[in-house]
Amino acid sequence: MEFLNEYSKRIKKIDNYIENYIDSITDTQPNLKEAIKYSVLNGGKRLRSILCIEFAKLNDVNEDLAYAFACAIEFIHAYSLVHDDLPCMDDDDFRRGMPSCHKKYGEGMAVLVGDALLTLAFDIMSFYSEKCEYPKNCIKAINFVACKAGMCGMINGQVIDINNTDNKNADYDLLLKLVDKKTSELICASVVTPAILAGVDDKKIKKFSEFASNLGIAFQIRDDFEDVEQDGGDDGSPNFINILGQDKARKTIVEYVKKCDLFISEFDNNEFLCEFFNYLFADFV
Amino acid sequence: MEFLNEYSKRIKKIDNYIENYIDSITDTQPNLKEAIKYSVLNGGKRLRSILCIEFAKLNDVNEDLAYAFACAIEFIHAYSLVHDDLPCMDDDDFRRGMPSCHKKYGEGMAVLVGDALLTLAFDIMSFYSEKCEYPKNCIKAINFVACKAGMCGMINGQVIDINNTDNKNADYDLLLKLVDKKTSELICASVVTPAILAGVDDKKIKKFSEFASNLGIAFQIRDDFEDVEQDGGDDGSPNFINILGQDKARKTIVEYVKKCDLFISEFDNNEFLCEFFNYLFADFV
Repeated sequence: MEFLNEYSKRIKKIDNYIENYIDSITDTQPNLKEAIKYSVLNGGKRLRSILCIEFAKLNDVNEDLAYAFACAIEFIHAYSLVHDDLPCMDDDDFRRGMPSCHKKYGEGMAVLVGDALLTLAFDIMSFYSEKCEYPKNCIKAINFVACKAGMCGMINGQVIDINNTDNKNADYDLLLKLVDKKTSELICASVVTPAILAGVDDKKIKKFSEFASNLGIAFQIRDDFEDVEQDGGDDGSPNFINILGQDKARKTIVEYVKKCDLFISEFDNNEFLCEFFNYLFADFV
Repeated sequence: MEFLNEYSKRIKKIDNYIENYIDSITDTQPNLKEAIKYSVLNGGKRLRSILCIEFAKLNDVNEDLAYAFACAIEFIHAYSLVHDDLPCMDDDDFRRGMPSCHKKYGEGMAVLVGDALLTLAFDIMSFYSEKCEYPKNCIKAINFVACKAGMCGMINGQVIDINNTDNKNADYDLLLKLVDKKTSELICASVVTPAILAGVDDKKIKKFSEFASNLGIAFQIRDDFEDVEQDGGDDGSPNFINILGQDKARKTIVEYVKKCDLFISEFDNNEFLCEFFNYLFADFV
């Protein structure tokens, strides 16, 4: 119960930060601003921004900078959902129980809302980086986010997904590659960016990346189970349940969560993250 | 004739740079890469990248950095065209005489190609900024590009456009605001970014911005005349010809080109830019 209070306090802090930041932007069309707020302040779990902020604490990164990068990654996640929901992509009329952006504001507007959120991510990162005393680390971190979000990262995963819709020969290796790109890359940005901002060495960065990759897989299996519960879950894309079956998918999630727990156990002040993972994966482990 | 040779040499150099850069990216899906190249290497005039490179020369900016920012702005311009052409936006089946991205690769892919190009812009800027000896200037320049491309800049202009389609009360003030955002902001990024990279003072930055704003208006009027020649030009958006009429639009372009010429005349080594403007506006002045 204590954890849930703490978790909702953190979500509230992030949501307030995002709302205040967007509200402070005045030189824009009111309907664009409203649609942007609608798309990003929609009751998300804030997994990515919480990871970024927690890993910033573990790496002693300045809080202002941590929030800027955390929100940037949340903006990128939100834009990807707005564009994913479009009729020419997954064609989803609802997002977290509410009409999706294009259902509420029209398709043209949804395209622009996604574009604006993606651009805003780089705006907020670079704006706060200007004030940082380690500008080279900031530039490296911005570049890392761009790589993880871009044509070798998340967007690559989305294209792998399009290329393999209704592919009856999709196997576990293809699924891992898809998830690694589509889901883990942005989680990797959340986890590794604070380490880059703190200037940690490449060996440690590699360990953070491996952890993020494991967490991405665990998180995706959890998501696949949620999709099955909500709508049957078979939209033609390869997923852990149609490739492995429910039993093996459950065993796989346990295996990956264990790897994540082991990594986190090496840090001091890891209580919140440990409880966060317990909470996220409570139905499985 | 000498100028045309020089101009085509410069276009070739930019196109080669873009092609080599995209070819060097290997960890991605081949069809995504092909669609990205199709959308950015399509015979553009390269106005924005040429401006960026020329203004980098005028400000003694390192050539590698200048090309990175010039190409980033070209990527942003290309993404905006790919998304603009979508059926839910302007619904254009052709772009520079070829099938538009979504006609060739499908709508879902076109959304992702645009997203990838926008992300790639920040990737290339930050990647080359890592090597720069003035990282704070680079961060400021990246932030400037993000502002000019985003919800207060170019995207704001696109939303003003959507909000005023078929608005019978659109007047000259609204048109100037629309053009200032939709067209001039990215031209401003091309012109001002090199000055920021060179660390020039705010007073000079303001002069560069005013020049870019004037050039944007001149360029938009030229574009509006081209649209009238090509397809009648009346797609419901306010433009210089349906607001001012052809005669007044011609007078207005002359007025703005004169302001641009005056600004450029203050620089040494301005020959190419002078001839470039003569070439662009030959039909009007």
